[in-house]
Amino acid sequence: MRARELHLNVNLLHSGVYPSAWRLPGSQSDAFVDIAHFIRVAHVAERGKLDAIFFADTPAINDRLDYRPLNALEPTIVLASVAAATRHIGLIATASTSYNEPYNLARRFASLDLVSGGRAGWNVVTTADAAAGRNFGRDGAPEHGDRYARAREFTEIVHALWDSWEDDAFVGDKASGRFVDTAKVHPIRHRGTHYRVEGPLTVPRSPQGRAVTVQAGGSEDGRELAAATADAVFSLAQTIPDGVAYAQDLRARAARYGRAPGSIVILPGLATVIGSTEAEAKRRQDALWDLVLLEYSLARLAGTLQVPLDRLELDKPLPDPLPLPANANHTMFRATVALARRDNLTVRQLLKALGGGVGHRILVGTPEGIADDIEAWFRAGAADGFNLMPDVLPDGLDTFVDAVVPILQSRGLFRTDYAGTTLRDHLGLPRPASRFARPRGASLSA
Amino acid sequence: MRARELHLNVNLLHSGVYPSAWRLPGSQSDAFVDIAHFIRVAHVAERGKLDAIFFADTPAINDRLDYRPLNALEPTIVLASVAAATRHIGLIATASTSYNEPYNLARRFASLDLVSGGRAGWNVVTTADAAAGRNFGRDGAPEHGDRYARAREFTEIVHALWDSWEDDAFVGDKASGRFVDTAKVHPIRHRGTHYRVEGPLTVPRSPQGRAVTVQAGGSEDGRELAAATADAVFSLAQTIPDGVAYAQDLRARAARYGRAPGSIVILPGLATVIGSTEAEAKRRQDALWDLVLLEYSLARLAGTLQVPLDRLELDKPLPDPLPLPANANHTMFRATVALARRDNLTVRQLLKALGGGVGHRILVGTPEGIADDIEAWFRAGAADGFNLMPDVLPDGLDTFVDAVVPILQSRGLFRTDYAGTTLRDHLGLPRPASRFARPRGASLSA
Repeated sequence: MRARELHLNVNLLHSGVYPSAWRLPGSQSDAFVDIAHFIRVAHVAERGKLDAIFFADTPAINDRLDYRPLNALEPTIVLASVAAATRHIGLIATASTSYNEPYNLARRFASLDLVSGGRAGWNVVTTADAAAGRNFGRDGAPEHGDRYARAREFTEIVHALWDSWEDDAFVGDKASGRFVDTAKVHPIRHRGTHYRVEGPLTVPRSPQGRAVTVQAGGSEDGRELAAATADAVFSLAQTIPDGVAYAQDLRARAARYGRAPGSIVILPGLATVIGSTEAEAKRRQDALWDLVLLEYSLARLAGTLQVPLDRLELDKPLPDPLPLPANANHTMFRATVALARRDNLTVRQLLKALGGGVGHRILVGTPEGIADDIEAWFRAGAADGFNLMPDVLPDGLDTFVDAVVPILQSRGLFRTDYAGTTLRDHLGLPRPASRFARPRGASLSA
Repeated sequence: MRARELHLNVNLLHSGVYPSAWRLPGSQSDAFVDIAHFIRVAHVAERGKLDAIFFADTPAINDRLDYRPLNALEPTIVLASVAAATRHIGLIATASTSYNEPYNLARRFASLDLVSGGRAGWNVVTTADAAAGRNFGRDGAPEHGDRYARAREFTEIVHALWDSWEDDAFVGDKASGRFVDTAKVHPIRHRGTHYRVEGPLTVPRSPQGRAVTVQAGGSEDGRELAAATADAVFSLAQTIPDGVAYAQDLRARAARYGRAPGSIVILPGLATVIGSTEAEAKRRQDALWDLVLLEYSLARLAGTLQVPLDRLELDKPLPDPLPLPANANHTMFRATVALARRDNLTVRQLLKALGGGVGHRILVGTPEGIADDIEAWFRAGAADGFNLMPDVLPDGLDTFVDAVVPILQSRGLFRTDYAGTTLRDHLGLPRPASRFARPRGASLSA
């Protein structure tokens, strides 16, 4: 058995995870629409032997555009372009189950897997955002339970479509003129509660069999979806005990679906602000925080908590009690409130601790300190690795790759080169067999 | 005024337009899923200074996979990859209005336009295919008129979304922290018969303002859609008089929408089989035809005509009369029947004239002869250029670029280098202003 390995993805953000990253003197302010920027980040990630780049997405403008960049471009388009300019790095794109057709989505990711030589991943989201709903004929987002019921069925359809060609269905025999053995290309005949999809997919089985399925499930429904279907999760945890509890819960759920303990790679988000000394790191954090507009970060916090702006007083703690909102990102809500309560932070202190809208855990320190933290989480079982969110891009990733990665490598925690060619290889995940594959000679039951 | 210019696209097919192309000794049989093949074809097209590569699509397996390759991969994924490997060539992808959400499609093509530096085109199709319907919760295709009513509304929404950011909405002022001037980013608030879409798009206005809109409208509804919305059409014509009649009809319709005569570039499909002598070209045609399986080409003809297979007798003419089928590709039907009747062909002769399933006009000859034909169509006003469909790829395109293009250039018909950078530049089309752009100082009416 291969030793347990650390895995590192990086979020392919515009100018960096800090909402103010674009304002730094060295930043390219229009990076969010420049493919050269995304390719540059991918090259740095590949130089650092990272597992994958990860592209978040919402099909709507759901943040304060007047203050900060957004994920403007459609992720699979960007990653298909990045694929042509890279050789190893995994390519994970977010796509919503609430606002796509499963046949189209399955095709797009199978195509991305083929054009990238087996490096595609699909991050499954249900899109809680009300503005997104209004772009797709609705007055707002579908209700939480409904979104997840659809997501479950949707994901099953996508996986079945990815299996619809057996691995050896393509023949290509010039002499006989036999192109495909159509007995090995199967309709899926899905007739469910929300969808009817006949299949087969137009796309032959891709290098990974199935693109890697990623999920960011924090709610009860989200965890069930991840336990049943995900190869990796992009989780949110602020402390090692939180991370351990989440991992234990998720692995127990996965076991109830008959899955092995190591079958899901757990990767919490981790924002990094790196300096060569603690003081330099803190100065960098201060500089980024000073450029965050207070009005923006307050509005964002109010959005996460779903409270009116005037209930947040800068130099007081959060209102108490704060009821869990019905239709919001529950994981983000809980982590934010826990962070504030734990250290009894004022709203102003909380905003800084949140990086003015970073959302995930922020680690401010030296390369050595950051490597120590990563190792501690990894050894405690709180994480199999991280979804890195550098403060500024490509700068913050450059530093991570040049200063933190070598420490992790010298400790035997992280690869010094890619051992395989696919994202599944990088993540240590097996290539699944097609559900339609039969032992030779066996007959198909109807 | 710039002299009228010839325009040449090439269909980015798997192994070539002949269903038997993959069986030639020099062909790569799995080219249909190899991104390196598509990039190779794009490089040849770029070497020949062609306007664009064109990728057809149906989101279903709708042909005889046992005999021939299909367009397996999702076109925008392929073209986003090709974009990263090319600099000039236009990138036109087909996408269906019946099986996509307008917001997603607008985003995908605006993103492709941005990552390619302004080279994207959208070929609007309504997808008559019944198998496609079954992949999207239907028992078959929606009815013809319904498909086109949706397509019209869909296209209007996409165009409005492409306008939703004014050209100068992005500010990126680091000093003030002003990222975007949100007064210049507009919801479209579309509430129509088939769709409700709020907008704005997540994507800033792209280099071309709007990606080039292509249409392949042959039916009455299709022509109206093209006249109202298209920048270019991929038409089907077997003779110069057919081509002239189509062009006159389309331009008259466009004029009724207040559009200028030159505002639509008309490009009939043209399959080419090139030899250095007439005899060599005919031998090449025979070799390709000999490798087409008769059973396949007969079934395909029966599908086009929507008649049972047993009504087609190989050594007799087509059945007479043949009623126009209610829900099929009317243009293809009419052109096929006209070709058979004109020369009083038997079914067998018709199959060979159709290249065993090529569909469009096939020109078999020398580079000089092919250049003469292209010039004759162009000067007669039957075409502004062609959508080339080489018999075999990349081989047939190599020959076209090396042997036919220089003749067209020496006659002053075709560019010797790209004059601009965008697909609109290549096609001689203006960059449209955003419908939301106002003279400075003017106030917005509600």
